[in-house]
Amino acid sequence: MIEPALDAYMAELGRAARTASVALARATTHEKNTALHAIADEIDRRSADILAANARDLAAAAALDAAMRDRLALNPARIASMSAGVREVAALADPIGIVTDLAYRPSGIQVGRMRVPLGVVGIIYEARPNVTADAAALCLKAGNATILRGGSEALHSNQAIATCVHAGLGRAGLPGTGVQVIATTDRAAVGAMLSHPEYIDVIVPRGGKSLIERVSREARMPVIKHLDGVCHVYIDADADLHKALEIAFNAKCQRYGTCNTMETLLVHADAAARVLPPLIAKYREAGVELRGCAATRAIDPDMSAASDEDWYAEYLAPILAVRIVGDLDEAIDHIRQYGSQHTDAIVTEHLGRARRFLVEVDSSSVMVNASTRFADGFEYGLGAEIGISTDKFHARGPVGLEGLTSQKWIVIGDGHVRR
Amino acid sequence: MIEPALDAYMAELGRAARTASVALARATTHEKNTALHAIADEIDRRSADILAANARDLAAAAALDAAMRDRLALNPARIASMSAGVREVAALADPIGIVTDLAYRPSGIQVGRMRVPLGVVGIIYEARPNVTADAAALCLKAGNATILRGGSEALHSNQAIATCVHAGLGRAGLPGTGVQVIATTDRAAVGAMLSHPEYIDVIVPRGGKSLIERVSREARMPVIKHLDGVCHVYIDADADLHKALEIAFNAKCQRYGTCNTMETLLVHADAAARVLPPLIAKYREAGVELRGCAATRAIDPDMSAASDEDWYAEYLAPILAVRIVGDLDEAIDHIRQYGSQHTDAIVTEHLGRARRFLVEVDSSSVMVNASTRFADGFEYGLGAEIGISTDKFHARGPVGLEGLTSQKWIVIGDGHVRR
Repeated sequence: MIEPALDAYMAELGRAARTASVALARATTHEKNTALHAIADEIDRRSADILAANARDLAAAAALDAAMRDRLALNPARIASMSAGVREVAALADPIGIVTDLAYRPSGIQVGRMRVPLGVVGIIYEARPNVTADAAALCLKAGNATILRGGSEALHSNQAIATCVHAGLGRAGLPGTGVQVIATTDRAAVGAMLSHPEYIDVIVPRGGKSLIERVSREARMPVIKHLDGVCHVYIDADADLHKALEIAFNAKCQRYGTCNTMETLLVHADAAARVLPPLIAKYREAGVELRGCAATRAIDPDMSAASDEDWYAEYLAPILAVRIVGDLDEAIDHIRQYGSQHTDAIVTEHLGRARRFLVEVDSSSVMVNASTRFADGFEYGLGAEIGISTDKFHARGPVGLEGLTSQKWIVIGDGHVRR
Repeated sequence: MIEPALDAYMAELGRAARTASVALARATTHEKNTALHAIADEIDRRSADILAANARDLAAAAALDAAMRDRLALNPARIASMSAGVREVAALADPIGIVTDLAYRPSGIQVGRMRVPLGVVGIIYEARPNVTADAAALCLKAGNATILRGGSEALHSNQAIATCVHAGLGRAGLPGTGVQVIATTDRAAVGAMLSHPEYIDVIVPRGGKSLIERVSREARMPVIKHLDGVCHVYIDADADLHKALEIAFNAKCQRYGTCNTMETLLVHADAAARVLPPLIAKYREAGVELRGCAATRAIDPDMSAASDEDWYAEYLAPILAVRIVGDLDEAIDHIRQYGSQHTDAIVTEHLGRARRFLVEVDSSSVMVNASTRFADGFEYGLGAEIGISTDKFHARGPVGLEGLTSQKWIVIGDGHVRR
């Protein structure tokens, strides 16, 4: 049960967001960009206030571990990167109002589709104040109103950033209620948000797995979510040795903690003797712990044995599971059974198998001869991403501005009626 | 609580569908079309069996009202139209595998999107056996496995049609479990379906409002749904008289019981004296009951007064609510407040107001100088529709093959790694 006062507060935010969404949906590109530049300017201008608010949050958060404190902490460089991010969103093309496929039908009417905002987007995230500016900017550019619920440890930081956002919206003549930051630290506020599909059209949870699982379970509206990133690289029999070494090393070692990092390496039996020894040497040099199947350990007996759990593992650490497979089908079956439908790559010079891998691997990003680390909104040209979706419905993979929009049908006639 | 035996049955169907979905996702266009033609041929060949099964259903359904019996009843013409519908789906372009926007990025990789099936589609419908063939054909063409739950009154008819579908799939070398019809009449089967998001990726309820509301409330997976169709025509001050009369009459009178039929007519005050008298005469001649606002009744005192409920009403009958508004803003506000975001049209020769109406009316179809009756998959060129969505997430408006698909990202490199 949600406490009535909290529910009333949430309903009030929801109604205000719904009203603001009408104004934001019809705001011109110029108005939205003016607001974004004004928000960025306010963030720069009020950076001392934001730092002071952040210091209060940090002082109250002495119990947090070092990694969480680091995510919570702001400094002048991080504030500058926040305002720069908002200006980058202003520079993106406005997706709203784009009409596609407008064509005449046999009846004489013209039918096409127009890109439109989703309405009200709810964002639930942890104690990372930069998400407040980021998410607000993307939703605003896509013509949506936003209700933001950040981690309670970042309350003062988020409120200070919200002040900048409201000032910027006001300077562009747009309603301040277009971006609302939930002002209570009551943990039940998340539950209250998730129970109002009439006010919030879609929820984007950004954070750890337990947050995302909770939101998916409780939300009564659609969720754009990202669960695991158990990514694979499959080195085919016809892989080029140099490309295989480069890609398999980069996919694991360029960064360990990201969702598009390779967690399991699959190698065709005919390529193993040629590829694995130099690759294992590179991983060892980088300090990566290897866990292999029996066939892999026959090549390198120093490796520990991989268990079934290793094939399912998202290590987010310098650990790699390695398996030798008999053919492409076995590789695809492994990915289907153990993967998380995030990002998987094949290294091969064989066109037929590249083509099959692209079609048959059912992941949000499927790659040929490229590192899984490329699965990212900036690398894909989206400019910025609100998240990476591992679902298929609506948006899949990196979700940028377009994922925050929908399309309506438009029909233009000249007195046409249906016979 | 779902009974364990029923839940186990549903899980078995779900696992079989999930396995079949892999084969259907990689089935070639030729294989899918071969299956569709074979299904159509089987329906024609076994029409006597289908009619016999339908006779059993009709005999057991003596208690149904005449409209429901009519929807349940098959005859040779209806069976021929069923097989013709399946052949029409075979003739549609295959959306699966289409790659769009493949472009080079600054890093040197090529990034694009490939259209892919959703996976397993669940369809829940009432006692209309033609939906069994229809929905199975559309889902199959889009590369999805399907679990069908038809109204229990149509059980024998649906099983007879399912026999044709399985035979057709088999003749194309595709798994019969690609289309499964739930064989129990246990009403709890719907609840069991809705509780398995791990087996069913999306649910499409087709039927009355109570069915759709129940499915929306209980489903733990996304739902493509259609609630109300409270459609408006707004006759602007600058409307052409002839076009206004044609469109307003057609939108109401071409068919009364469809979701894209106009239920409320809005007329600009400056157009009322010119438009309403001849239009009212036409409606009266067609037997349409009119309910008006005070200003409308000042023009035609014979009309009864519209209440607030009339503005919300989806009559699906020869009844029309009529309101005179002061300007375009008032018309848009009325549609926002009382409409169902289905289909709304403006009649005007004024380009600026047409442009504003197209942008500002937030409905799945927005029209200029055309009858709302055009909001339909066939009229829009989709070929066939699985339903009309009044949601914004994923698919909006008439949902054809494309709405049963998603897009994944594909990346093509030549040894590219992230720096």
